[in-house]
Amino acid sequence: MLRPRGFTVWFTGLPCSGKSTLARLLHQRLQRLGLSVELLDGDEVRQRLTRGLGFSKEDRDENISRIAYVARLLTHAGAVAIIAAISPYRQARDHARAEIGDFVEVYLDCPLEECIRRDVKGQYARALRGEIPHFTGVSDPYEPPLQPDLLVKSDVESPEESLQRIVGRLVELGYLSFEDLSRSASEDQTTGGLA
Amino acid sequence: MLRPRGFTVWFTGLPCSGKSTLARLLHQRLQRLGLSVELLDGDEVRQRLTRGLGFSKEDRDENISRIAYVARLLTHAGAVAIIAAISPYRQARDHARAEIGDFVEVYLDCPLEECIRRDVKGQYARALRGEIPHFTGVSDPYEPPLQPDLLVKSDVESPEESLQRIVGRLVELGYLSFEDLSRSASEDQTTGGLA
Repeated sequence: MLRPRGFTVWFTGLPCSGKSTLARLLHQRLQRLGLSVELLDGDEVRQRLTRGLGFSKEDRDENISRIAYVARLLTHAGAVAIIAAISPYRQARDHARAEIGDFVEVYLDCPLEECIRRDVKGQYARALRGEIPHFTGVSDPYEPPLQPDLLVKSDVESPEESLQRIVGRLVELGYLSFEDLSRSASEDQTTGGLA
Repeated sequence: MLRPRGFTVWFTGLPCSGKSTLARLLHQRLQRLGLSVELLDGDEVRQRLTRGLGFSKEDRDENISRIAYVARLLTHAGAVAIIAAISPYRQARDHARAEIGDFVEVYLDCPLEECIRRDVKGQYARALRGEIPHFTGVSDPYEPPLQPDLLVKSDVESPEESLQRIVGRLVELGYLSFEDLSRSASEDQTTGGLA
């Protein structure tokens, strides 16, 4: 029995840059390929792993360190870990990459103005009024990746276009095979594409 | 592609009751069966997931809750999670069982006197001198499981005997198959048992 090869897809970017949306789409897509895949999203992580931590640099680093530890366990066990986390500090992401090894960094490069326009939870508005300290993009820094494995212009591409590019990149990096993808396609046919 | 069925083996018991020893033996044994298996031991967990938590009931519950969350992720991803944690409170373990589902509770039932005699890290001696507050078995309670999936008398059985019984119980519960075990046996033959 060959153990499957695990890997981590790590979405980083400003609040409202589209990380959770793409993470969920990728999660569904990989599940349809029959892969063992787990999604760790920011809110759940803050609830289950890092309750009590704030948003100082030290606390953010600890937050990312815990996520990286769990992603390493999943990856090592042959599963796919999908992470959606602002993860604003380059060094913390680089530590995660070093720890996990099979690490695909996807940078959602979305202009701040567009993120502010989306403002899904109204947090930018509050941060701009000075009501939220340490809010990434407003009162806290975001350090973009210098060499992400994939850069997604989420203000220009549709989520489906971005998903397509991510899947392509995973094939290119050897984490997904054409066999994986064709199995999925044939399953789509037999179920009329409703799977 | 069938996803493998994941499960969690949760070792609970007093300090020095033999949890880590058995957890490591089981980890090795299941790895030799070709399973994806991850071991979460108390010390590593306190370093990576629960730094800053103390030993009050509230903090212990949070500690166990985080371990349970990670064990659930691994189990759900089709891996085997092996946990070695004092986990003294029955309700916290029962919550873990409810969250994880495929949960095998192994209770290391070792008399306190024998644990004190072993005192691997000299902590019992310090606790008995009043130097460690909240030390399970001395200044903090331990609530034994009422219906563990397996009870191990670790003062009477050798670790190898206990391991044998654990593996047998996993077969009985349907988590391991005879096929798994015979594959391992034939691999032992081809490698002269050195695998």
